[in-house]
Amino acid sequence: MKYIDFEYNINNDFDIDIWSKKATRAYTDLHAINREKMNGWLDIEKIIKNEDIEIIKNLANEVKENAEVLIVVGIGGSFLGAKAGIDFLSDYYNFDKKIEIIFVGNSLSEKYLMDTIKYVEDKNVYINVISKSGGTMEPAIAFRVFKNLLEKKYGDKAKERIIVTTTKGKGLLYEIAKKNNYRKLFIPENIGGRYSVLTTVGIFPIACAGFNVKKILEAAKEMQEDLLDLNFKKNIALQYAALRNYLYSTGKDIEVFSSFTPNMRYFLEWLKQLYGESECKQNMGIFPASLIFSTDLHSMGQLMQEGKRNIFETFVSINKENVENNLYLEEDKDDIDKLNYLINNNINEINKIAKNGTKKAHLEGQVPIIEIKIEKQDEKTLGAMFYFFQYSCAISGYILGVDPFNQPGVEKYKSEIKRLLEKK
Amino acid sequence: MKYIDFEYNINNDFDIDIWSKKATRAYTDLHAINREKMNGWLDIEKIIKNEDIEIIKNLANEVKENAEVLIVVGIGGSFLGAKAGIDFLSDYYNFDKKIEIIFVGNSLSEKYLMDTIKYVEDKNVYINVISKSGGTMEPAIAFRVFKNLLEKKYGDKAKERIIVTTTKGKGLLYEIAKKNNYRKLFIPENIGGRYSVLTTVGIFPIACAGFNVKKILEAAKEMQEDLLDLNFKKNIALQYAALRNYLYSTGKDIEVFSSFTPNMRYFLEWLKQLYGESECKQNMGIFPASLIFSTDLHSMGQLMQEGKRNIFETFVSINKENVENNLYLEEDKDDIDKLNYLINNNINEINKIAKNGTKKAHLEGQVPIIEIKIEKQDEKTLGAMFYFFQYSCAISGYILGVDPFNQPGVEKYKSEIKRLLEKK
Repeated sequence: MKYIDFEYNINNDFDIDIWSKKATRAYTDLHAINREKMNGWLDIEKIIKNEDIEIIKNLANEVKENAEVLIVVGIGGSFLGAKAGIDFLSDYYNFDKKIEIIFVGNSLSEKYLMDTIKYVEDKNVYINVISKSGGTMEPAIAFRVFKNLLEKKYGDKAKERIIVTTTKGKGLLYEIAKKNNYRKLFIPENIGGRYSVLTTVGIFPIACAGFNVKKILEAAKEMQEDLLDLNFKKNIALQYAALRNYLYSTGKDIEVFSSFTPNMRYFLEWLKQLYGESECKQNMGIFPASLIFSTDLHSMGQLMQEGKRNIFETFVSINKENVENNLYLEEDKDDIDKLNYLINNNINEINKIAKNGTKKAHLEGQVPIIEIKIEKQDEKTLGAMFYFFQYSCAISGYILGVDPFNQPGVEKYKSEIKRLLEKK
Repeated sequence: MKYIDFEYNINNDFDIDIWSKKATRAYTDLHAINREKMNGWLDIEKIIKNEDIEIIKNLANEVKENAEVLIVVGIGGSFLGAKAGIDFLSDYYNFDKKIEIIFVGNSLSEKYLMDTIKYVEDKNVYINVISKSGGTMEPAIAFRVFKNLLEKKYGDKAKERIIVTTTKGKGLLYEIAKKNNYRKLFIPENIGGRYSVLTTVGIFPIACAGFNVKKILEAAKEMQEDLLDLNFKKNIALQYAALRNYLYSTGKDIEVFSSFTPNMRYFLEWLKQLYGESECKQNMGIFPASLIFSTDLHSMGQLMQEGKRNIFETFVSINKENVENNLYLEEDKDDIDKLNYLINNNINEINKIAKNGTKKAHLEGQVPIIEIKIEKQDEKTLGAMFYFFQYSCAISGYILGVDPFNQPGVEKYKSEIKRLLEKK
């Protein structure tokens, strides 16, 4: 496929006939027309129209011109997608960026909140608060805290610095936005949090961070069209969904997402939510974990090589990181560290060899390997990946036999906390 | 025990008689005199003597006075312990710190290396390179890169800005240090990487970050003495080691380390290395994962509540985060967000209630729960925790029947990479 290549090395028992039939059935389930179903994210052009993109870009330009810090208030799907996208596209030290994006509302740590207040109180700040309902406690608390801060700093003008992303006409956050006359961006009702990164939820913060969201959406749309192909051997989203279900059926309970690019850390976190929340229900589902190599080869590498054989590994690998030039080791006349044999390879080539060596070692350790290969670290690739994984995840859930769009278990802890707080 | 409290809620089949006997046997194994055994970390006073602490403090003062950035070159145990300690004790935005600690050598990402070069090249820099042998490729490459940078910046004076932590009289890094006349700190030979945080390996970077390492070591020593108690009901390290082996024997293959304090993120990463590398061998061992709540309740919470029941959860919870004052929600006259009922609780209290609600919800979801409770976020607590977990991990490995001090699987990927590079 255009943005994503795919290979796997498992074993010979994978029966393509059986699993392609399962995948085809899941494809039909996913695309079936059903007004209740949360599959609104399937059609990119319906989620965000061209005129919406213009509104988002203009608003983002205003934020970039007027703020040093954008505080994004959100949790789960209202946090991870934007964070994953921004980190994937960013430099490690935020060079040349006028604006810093800080995420709050995903924690009740008193220290984190107080440190963040201290950090932003003398800076020029905008807020983007994201919640479908406004009823989740963590972001609601953080929003009250930072809204008060803005009102103290800017008085009546505070409302011009708060942008609300929520459901149109519904919920507490919509009420608050209406009453205060905040500007609003809307989330389609038939899209759940973990499938929302390609809506206003993810796109607006990514635009504020300075990236070209039009390209993200264009490539997502291209991926959407590619994935309509029902030919199993050509449709890698179907193949990936089938393979992971096959591996699960053979006792592989844990999927380790691995990457050799640290910029991928939050993308893998986003994958954990996407797959974990979509599939892990009714006492079933693969436990998703993530590793960034080489770092984690020196912590979890022993386990990958020789631990309990209940794991399989999905590499998400970038062929060429986003660098202007290449870095080479310089020759050392003494060569005490014995690295002179490497001086003709740039570091990216060495990193790729490390990936290939690791794959080979893990395969020899009886770990089945899937590799999702991408070429570049740019907006188009990001958009294609977001859509690819959402699509494959939904297919995977239907193959497993669960509803990939609900999350009944998340409510449980919320109601326990509410009960304890009200008792107090 | 003085710094750590402990409770658990699993089920009634845990037979204390059987498991206390296993733990006692493991205790004997651990303390048996054996010159080959890598248990040198057991005796805090032998690892770092008082005069060593003075040397470390003086050297750290020099670094703090002369550098804006300390580049720590290391991977695995030469990275995670220091990172865990510094993050546990730090503010989230590095307020009032003169020095910034940057960790390299744990990745072969070309972009990360090049961005880091760009970030530090105009800053005042020291390097601390940490490796027992000097032969591991990732830190060796990073050291050559940043050593060259310093030589370009400072010429002959570069050598005054490089501090080497390595084995005395042995290995490539020792040779390099001797030849260049770098200052050296030594790692005892009978201590492996993942048990080395309380040696020069972890203590020096933590001292450079501005923390009181004497207190860390004092509390570790207190913990050491407390854990000599062979009374199973009083010795929580033995209990914790026994409980997790018991749970593993009942099919709980995954241990989820959880905390409600984001400062704990890298401490949990350190735990993953410690337990994963010590136990996961011979196709056995518990898969360690980590979650920071509330963040991850909105990604992995669904799985915790209703996924496959092959997990147990170990909370590491802080009673009082390190804040100067308490943060309260302000009353809102309209109360559209319906949070006014919370205004008499400070945020830390609400976070603790969230923890209790989460524990209750997960227990009701049939997840066995262990809780390691600490009071404060300070140096003494940190030292006690480091020692506690190292000790309990070694006991746990002996109960399982593996050598908790080797890591044969880590070599495999290294040799594969070397082979591929040399072929090229």
